Amino acid sequence: MVDIATRVWNHKWKIDPIVRSLIDTDFYKLLMCQSVFRNHPDTQVTFSLINRSTDVPLARLIDAGELREQLDHVRSLSLSRGESTWMRGNTFYGKRQMFTPEFMDWFEALRLPPYHLEQKGEQYELTFEGSWPEVMLWEIPALAILMEMRGRAVLDDMGRFELQVLYARAMTKLWEKVKRLRGLDGLRIADFGTRRRHSFLWQDWCVQAMQEGLGTAFSGTSNCLIAKDRDLEAIGTNAHEMPMVYAALAKDDAALARAPYDVLSDWHEEHDGNLRIILPDTYGTQGFLDRAPDWLARWTGIRIDSGDPAKGAEIAINWWRARGEDPTEKLIIFSDGLDVAKIEELHRQFAGRVRVSFGWGTLLTNDFRGLTEGDALAPFSLVCKAVAADGRPTVKLSDNPEKAMGPPDQIRRYKDVFDVGQQERLEVVV
Amino acid sequence: MVDIATRVWNHKWKIDPIVRSLIDTDFYKLLMCQSVFRNHPDTQVTFSLINRSTDVPLARLIDAGELREQLDHVRSLSLSRGESTWMRGNTFYGKRQMFTPEFMDWFEALRLPPYHLEQKGEQYELTFEGSWPEVMLWEIPALAILMEMRGRAVLDDMGRFELQVLYARAMTKLWEKVKRLRGLDGLRIADFGTRRRHSFLWQDWCVQAMQEGLGTAFSGTSNCLIAKDRDLEAIGTNAHEMPMVYAALAKDDAALARAPYDVLSDWHEEHDGNLRIILPDTYGTQGFLDRAPDWLARWTGIRIDSGDPAKGAEIAINWWRARGEDPTEKLIIFSDGLDVAKIEELHRQFAGRVRVSFGWGTLLTNDFRGLTEGDALAPFSLVCKAVAADGRPTVKLSDNPEKAMGPPDQIRRYKDVFDVGQQERLEVVV
Repeated sequence: MVDIATRVWNHKWKIDPIVRSLIDTDFYKLLMCQSVFRNHPDTQVTFSLINRSTDVPLARLIDAGELREQLDHVRSLSLSRGESTWMRGNTFYGKRQMFTPEFMDWFEALRLPPYHLEQKGEQYELTFEGSWPEVMLWEIPALAILMEMRGRAVLDDMGRFELQVLYARAMTKLWEKVKRLRGLDGLRIADFGTRRRHSFLWQDWCVQAMQEGLGTAFSGTSNCLIAKDRDLEAIGTNAHEMPMVYAALAKDDAALARAPYDVLSDWHEEHDGNLRIILPDTYGTQGFLDRAPDWLARWTGIRIDSGDPAKGAEIAINWWRARGEDPTEKLIIFSDGLDVAKIEELHRQFAGRVRVSFGWGTLLTNDFRGLTEGDALAPFSLVCKAVAADGRPTVKLSDNPEKAMGPPDQIRRYKDVFDVGQQERLEVVV
Repeated sequence: MVDIATRVWNHKWKIDPIVRSLIDTDFYKLLMCQSVFRNHPDTQVTFSLINRSTDVPLARLIDAGELREQLDHVRSLSLSRGESTWMRGNTFYGKRQMFTPEFMDWFEALRLPPYHLEQKGEQYELTFEGSWPEVMLWEIPALAILMEMRGRAVLDDMGRFELQVLYARAMTKLWEKVKRLRGLDGLRIADFGTRRRHSFLWQDWCVQAMQEGLGTAFSGTSNCLIAKDRDLEAIGTNAHEMPMVYAALAKDDAALARAPYDVLSDWHEEHDGNLRIILPDTYGTQGFLDRAPDWLARWTGIRIDSGDPAKGAEIAINWWRARGEDPTEKLIIFSDGLDVAKIEELHRQFAGRVRVSFGWGTLLTNDFRGLTEGDALAPFSLVCKAVAADGRPTVKLSDNPEKAMGPPDQIRRYKDVFDVGQQERLEVVV
């Protein structure tokens, strides 16, 4: 039987909105947002979309008017009552009232600030300017919109059966991966794939497949909306934007050298347990750890998000040992460009030596590689980053020079201040 | 939105009926039924289910009570008004009123006769006895029920995602086949896969895939219900049961030798054009054609349903030439155990030399080979045949001794009467 109301409802939409909720975003964005709201509510930042895959001509594939409609739709969103209840009432990482009443009041009233869109050749320039706690919430929806609109441009040319077979093949592909992961004893893995997902519905399917296929080995999803709807743990801690903005705000080199630790000092006051995860690679992992205060060694774990992950993990283990900590009680979260083979390899190498966890992103929620002619649906490397804070440029070095960002003179200055030498150049897949 | 009424309705069913309509059957059954209704309404026949794949233990896989429920459900069916309207009002093979008012009146009142079910070791003995026009209509639903119940026994142990991925893989597999067939210029192909389909819904999906993928190269389906619902041509002519029963009724060897031609003589009076298709292999193709009267050479075509199909087609072409007919105006329908590679090969070999058409059966609608552990969903060789007529056993020789049926002494007698010598033994896949 056709549900006539549903059908009419579907046809009433002027657009098919890609992002339909303010909490269709990564959990760590909300944690960071609260921290920023508390510590730096008036900092003015600029976020900018950067397509590292210059061979994907976004401005040719995506109509500017339709892109505006999608972005405008996000600006029309506000927190629903149920979403607010979930954030206020739910337990996150074992803690009640993770979000303070002050933050929630502010968040309930929030609408996302304006965007600036311009076409530059075959690419779009998409930037967001304003106060940090507002602008930062654009990152995930902006990425998800661009990624999905590029996908829709390809799907538009496909017939009904081609579409069904496309998803059939994608499902088969993912399920084969899930079945392989079942073979890993003691696996802990979460979905980190919101930003570069194929689509919301597909991410939701992937999460359900992980749930069904992996049971308790699947620890949750970074996507708050899916976590809420599927009664899963919302997963995530913090990201590079924190040290990047803190660093940009530093008045001199001494303050700059201190900035990454200031971030974690603020975080230390706000969170404990499994939320005390160090992200050490913003300005080079080795130097960051060498110069870290001892209280940081007592944190729960480290997230490895660039460079050779096995090397990064060995550096972390050695650091804990040097600081008198027992690595087997520490947590390492791998989250950079993972796919099944890499997960298997890292799990074999580190399970037992440390507690290991995986944040599986783009190749969980958008592995459409090899499924269409000319690989037109393969994911690509799109990011949306803080590029300035209070008028000063931000810099990221990371453990892979391919992921470095910022003006060249500032990069040189940062390398100097953080004593970063020669780095291994690694290809960025997604 | 959940359609509550639909959901409640679905949960009200005591069983999930496999066959839900009297026209969920092959079109040729209805054509033959009308012919039998006219020429042999009182002949008493026995049809019997034969599982040629003795390694598939049907009685172990399928609960006898549930099997009875499915068979009983078929006995509760009668022609609906819409089905009757379609049969009375539709054009079949370009002809209006293919089914006479007398036949339709009888068919509208029909309920299928009783069945006899017994367990013999790991197999079921399922037989149907009664008047020919009634009993013959059991063949297709009985086969479809057994085949689908065996499938359900396997599917019962699978989780929700395993199921979704199973169908995803089956869809992918079929679509790859359809895409390969697109490469064949001037292809004509129909669905002949009702009897050994995976399920009704799956057959319906396969038909839609053929429609979407092949366009006009897809000439229709043998399944009347799908033809009606999808506005497709219903395809089919006649089958071995006609000469088998006519032969069994023959009073002496001379009448036996004449029997296969008597069938076609009756058919000649009833049908013309594309329905005048010879099925020559019941008692050996070569001998049948050698002894055929000249009016048969003027028929539209020949269906090749056993033996080496290329050899059968060459025999047909030579026979037409010998009888002064132009083979390029004749139609050859291949319908035995086809899959894409064989279709490609036969198309390459015969397109242009004759008009070629394909009736694609089990490996269209039930190619689940390789999709489950232990290949538990692979189709198998199940048939339901007339085994006796007015108390006398039937015999089939065909062009492959693996497909021969009947009591050994009668097989010897038939081989003698029809002068069938050594035959090539070919493996029967489905």
